[in-house]
Amino acid sequence: MERIVLGIDPGLANTGWGVMMQRGSSLSCLAYGCVSTPASHDISVRLMKIHDQIGAVISKFSPQCLGIETIFFDRNVTAAFGTGQARGAALVACAKGGLKVGEFTPSQIKMAVVGEGNAEKRQVQYMVQQILGLKDAPRPDHAADALAAAICYV
Amino acid sequence: MERIVLGIDPGLANTGWGVMMQRGSSLSCLAYGCVSTPASHDISVRLMKIHDQIGAVISKFSPQCLGIETIFFDRNVTAAFGTGQARGAALVACAKGGLKVGEFTPSQIKMAVVGEGNAEKRQVQYMVQQILGLKDAPRPDHAADALAAAICYV
Repeated sequence: MERIVLGIDPGLANTGWGVMMQRGSSLSCLAYGCVSTPASHDISVRLMKIHDQIGAVISKFSPQCLGIETIFFDRNVTAAFGTGQARGAALVACAKGGLKVGEFTPSQIKMAVVGEGNAEKRQVQYMVQQILGLKDAPRPDHAADALAAAICYV
Repeated sequence: MERIVLGIDPGLANTGWGVMMQRGSSLSCLAYGCVSTPASHDISVRLMKIHDQIGAVISKFSPQCLGIETIFFDRNVTAAFGTGQARGAALVACAKGGLKVGEFTPSQIKMAVVGEGNAEKRQVQYMVQQILGLKDAPRPDHAADALAAAICYV
């Protein structure tokens, strides 16, 4: 079985994304990156940029499915509101592309990648690098987190 | 001066909208409604519905600007996350339509509509009806709240 999986780590300032190919039990990284939007821009312009750039990634790689982190219950209301808006913009692009969406809690993602639900961020990044056979750890962190969500989907 | 102003009250389950015409100091309501999405549907499908239906309203009425409520600081993280996602989906549609966005706190909206920052919901609905010369109070509440945000913009 072969499929392409997108991972997204949504955020208003930085939305990480990563695209991964699954061939049977083998995983490889096709591309990753981060959509950054300056706080000085209008909120709607920032959200459109997230929507459009995630849409461009979907057009380029045609992933069939998406792994995305669900809410951090430990974050505050303002953070949840910002992340929520970015997530909304990104998910509209995914729905247009017909992607099947898998939502995971942070601990589900850590469990899938590191085998421990309360692993540290650095461990997650290291394991993403190992699992995907990357020479370096994906940068920025948001891209690594996005790939971790994609790995969790698989 | 004549302009068309959209108001949106975003929510994952119910996103209210209202379109208003401003001619000098006179305001009239062109249309209002509510986009409802069932919790049983996929999150991305729900967000696409909000995006597409708000997009259809914008195509139909060509508003130049948008009034939208900003975060309720008194709500919980889960509510903020849901509202944030709906807001993100709606704002992408507004950015595509080139709308100028005005964001207002609940108390700014109440102050503009009722003249009191901590007015009750019913007072706001009553004043929206009076200001726009409507026979009945807009239903559902989400539509009235959306029109209140549009009035606040003006």
